[in-house]
Amino acid sequence: LSHSAALPILAFDVFGTVVDWFSTIRNEAAMLFADYGCGADPAAFALAWRAGYQPAMQRVRSGELGWTRIDDLHRLILDQILIDFNLAQVDESRRRELNLVWHRLDPWPDVVDGLSLLKTRFRVCTLSNGNLSLLSDLARHGGLQWDLILSAETFRAYKPDPASYLGVAQVFDVAPHTVTLVAAHKSDLAAARACGLRTAFIERPLECGPGTAVDISADHSFDWHAKDLIDLARQMAA
Amino acid sequence: LSHSAALPILAFDVFGTVVDWFSTIRNEAAMLFADYGCGADPAAFALAWRAGYQPAMQRVRSGELGWTRIDDLHRLILDQILIDFNLAQVDESRRRELNLVWHRLDPWPDVVDGLSLLKTRFRVCTLSNGNLSLLSDLARHGGLQWDLILSAETFRAYKPDPASYLGVAQVFDVAPHTVTLVAAHKSDLAAARACGLRTAFIERPLECGPGTAVDISADHSFDWHAKDLIDLARQMAA
Repeated sequence: LSHSAALPILAFDVFGTVVDWFSTIRNEAAMLFADYGCGADPAAFALAWRAGYQPAMQRVRSGELGWTRIDDLHRLILDQILIDFNLAQVDESRRRELNLVWHRLDPWPDVVDGLSLLKTRFRVCTLSNGNLSLLSDLARHGGLQWDLILSAETFRAYKPDPASYLGVAQVFDVAPHTVTLVAAHKSDLAAARACGLRTAFIERPLECGPGTAVDISADHSFDWHAKDLIDLARQMAA
Repeated sequence: LSHSAALPILAFDVFGTVVDWFSTIRNEAAMLFADYGCGADPAAFALAWRAGYQPAMQRVRSGELGWTRIDDLHRLILDQILIDFNLAQVDESRRRELNLVWHRLDPWPDVVDGLSLLKTRFRVCTLSNGNLSLLSDLARHGGLQWDLILSAETFRAYKPDPASYLGVAQVFDVAPHTVTLVAAHKSDLAAARACGLRTAFIERPLECGPGTAVDISADHSFDWHAKDLIDLARQMAA
């Protein structure tokens, strides 16, 4: 008999934890700026797009917007920052193509090998605010072998809504402590811990590019602290 | 740039179309019967379990039961057929383990290679009434490389509810005719066609075991008719 149904669950945050959004978006912004003769800093464009993300989700969480997928929230933010960067002349088809950059972000270099190691003793799934088709395209693009793609879209609840964390446990029909959230963001982990999940912090010092410091300090309220997914797999096997 | 976001979608029915439920369940029923000295036919047990499936889903569709996953419906049916087969003495832990047989069904022999071929020109996903953890365990058990696992559980609507078929198109943000349902059951395909999806019929003459005939006749109202997934891949590449 196969025993995969008995394996505990690792649920991964994706943007920043699994994939490097900054580099790909900065690179595509640089191509856009070259095409349109824009002299601004492409890194600032990437940071501005990402900075719009939490406020946009907050409009959904608060009820101001009905359920809206990240693809559509990314597009709302993009339309605004194109104005802010004096690029209002960018046409519809280019906007649509550019908005899909979030579907082709590269994984960090440790991710494919790290997931393979972790898969030998865990079922690995996503728990991302990214929508299902976005996560599916990222998996295909990066060769990420998830056992299951779960999203805020599955639960119609954006993290840190408890319905998202508890939803993972419910889908797998296990107690919350059987699920470990793996993330590079302490607020995400703290919300998961409050729901009874275990927590693993991953250091991603370059998440926001080389010019922006991020908090990778040790926090002993989390169950694991790892440099990357290969390090996490080694610690969990010890 | 990666273009996976531009690939059309194949959505697969799973029980019978992708995996052979009959053989695995008959085999595990035979082990159960040996352990409990039951002289009944294990094939009849497999057929009885499967026969309870549509009526159980109908209790959900009609509103008699609230949303209930297939794992739980399978358990309700199992408890009844254990009585019918004079096996009421089977204990709780064995029932729980036996109910998970639906998580470890083997794929038909053409499936792994067929999916690999089809994946070069399509995004491949499930659209099954099986719940998400069940489909995830089947994928792991059989080495099925889905781009995305979608389930009635995703949409809280059992096929043939239109919300399930249209839900696939909505998840991928495409028109319904960009999605092809692949199934061994004509009623499933007819319901998908009524929602504007394309349809591919797969012959699975042994779905219900060697002793039970199933309808594999040509029906020209479907877009494709294939002997198996490798045949479908060849036809679609032609």
